[in-house]
Amino acid sequence: MQLPDSIMITEVGPRDGLQNEPEQVPVQEKIDFINQLSACGFPEIEATAFVSPRWVPQLADAGEVLAGIQRVEGVAYSALVPNIEGWERAQDGNVDKISVFTAASETFSKRNTNATIEETLNRFQPVVHAAREAGCPVRAYVSCVVACPFEGKIAPAKVKGVVDHLLDLGVTEIDLGDTIGMATPSDMDALVEVVADRVPPEKLVLHLHDTRGTALACCYRAMQLGVRRFDASCGGLGGCPYAPGATGNLATEDLLFLARGLGIPAGVDASGVLQASAMMERSLDRPLVGRVYRAESCSEEA
Amino acid sequence: MQLPDSIMITEVGPRDGLQNEPEQVPVQEKIDFINQLSACGFPEIEATAFVSPRWVPQLADAGEVLAGIQRVEGVAYSALVPNIEGWERAQDGNVDKISVFTAASETFSKRNTNATIEETLNRFQPVVHAAREAGCPVRAYVSCVVACPFEGKIAPAKVKGVVDHLLDLGVTEIDLGDTIGMATPSDMDALVEVVADRVPPEKLVLHLHDTRGTALACCYRAMQLGVRRFDASCGGLGGCPYAPGATGNLATEDLLFLARGLGIPAGVDASGVLQASAMMERSLDRPLVGRVYRAESCSEEA
Repeated sequence: MQLPDSIMITEVGPRDGLQNEPEQVPVQEKIDFINQLSACGFPEIEATAFVSPRWVPQLADAGEVLAGIQRVEGVAYSALVPNIEGWERAQDGNVDKISVFTAASETFSKRNTNATIEETLNRFQPVVHAAREAGCPVRAYVSCVVACPFEGKIAPAKVKGVVDHLLDLGVTEIDLGDTIGMATPSDMDALVEVVADRVPPEKLVLHLHDTRGTALACCYRAMQLGVRRFDASCGGLGGCPYAPGATGNLATEDLLFLARGLGIPAGVDASGVLQASAMMERSLDRPLVGRVYRAESCSEEA
Repeated sequence: MQLPDSIMITEVGPRDGLQNEPEQVPVQEKIDFINQLSACGFPEIEATAFVSPRWVPQLADAGEVLAGIQRVEGVAYSALVPNIEGWERAQDGNVDKISVFTAASETFSKRNTNATIEETLNRFQPVVHAAREAGCPVRAYVSCVVACPFEGKIAPAKVKGVVDHLLDLGVTEIDLGDTIGMATPSDMDALVEVVADRVPPEKLVLHLHDTRGTALACCYRAMQLGVRRFDASCGGLGGCPYAPGATGNLATEDLLFLARGLGIPAGVDASGVLQASAMMERSLDRPLVGRVYRAESCSEEA
């Protein structure tokens, strides 16, 4: 069980971190935020989503945001794309990569996207085909891989079935999401093992939530198992905006702190990330919940 | 690297969790809090401290608290005791165990207790002697075992020197504290190894802070190394009261969530702990920061 010699972080703050924010963040603040993140050295930034403005009004400005940012060489700018209309908008937006989205829980899929898992997969088929034709890589998010708010515990075999179907469709990357933050390290063992025949640990992406404080314990276990790709959101953006202090996405700064302590380079400038978080804290006008971010804010105030 | 078949949690909320609270918590609320904790199944509760009321005014009521609680068989009620006067008061309070307190950082020791490490050890000598004569076990806290707010990184050899001195004095238990929450899992390797010749992993106690989100990752790593005794504070009591959202002690609920996910029994009723936290949240009139506690509060409000 050797830890990886480096990790790769996809910064998802601009998309996953902001999509549920009830107050509209001005386009220019999103552009400044992404430009700041671009300067930090992330290999990939999920910048926005080409989804229905009715479904996610916060990201209705996807085209403007992508047109406004200064692209840095070596950074892949990706966007979530749920259907063929989204793919066309994403092409106009000149994205480097797209993401599609399904779930390992049938109930969550129905409630979240008003479609069965199979229906979401069928809807992706032309998107994945078009993207592959255009030479655009396709990440596939699978949410609720450990537990579902409606169904409870999700069996790894269920995750495996969805992953196999996605790979058969031709997606180029699998990203497993513990959407409600219920994972502990033993779930990492089960997930890494169940997909290993088609997704080796070093290719797998994990999207962990720190809702119950276990995200870094899971990252650490996953690293022991050979995983080296993680999503994170600066300052922990993407918590539950209606419940102050409740947390969602693993904070980028926390993951960087873990990696640094373990001597594992991530190639990301941690102080630049703190600045990006501070920009969004001012923009959203409420304290971000990331632990390192709060600890740094605390020591500045003290 | 097999995980332990059970863990033991010492609940430190009533002492470590409350000692820095600026508003005096009424004696009866402390008693109710400890009684609620006693019903949860903890093997040990650090109930209070017999320190100078000038130093820690919040715990000036130590005698009253210990006189007021309903003791449950199988629960050890312990108290922090800095000197021989404290030991005499603790005897009157009929404690089952005492704790003494020093640091692995010379600067922290001087700033925190106005004494060098050696002076604190000399001060403990008669306390430890008297306690041993009385058949009372003595825990020794060593703070700043990973890093110090003044000195930065602390070398494991420094920790080892202090631990050896404490064991030579006759203390019965070593509790290593990451006082400012700077540890990552590799620090657990270093600490467990450096003390192993005199404190086997299964006897060692760890006192971790979740300031940067790494506490559970460290617990997990420590468990892999054979550690099975941990301190925790319900709801994460003991954060920095002046910086909302900044966190200190590892929350008991979070550790219980990890252990449950790993299939490791702790013998503690998690729902009872949530109730104890809710009592203190009402008493302190500000949101507690423990992640599981907040997640549960969030789902109740939603």
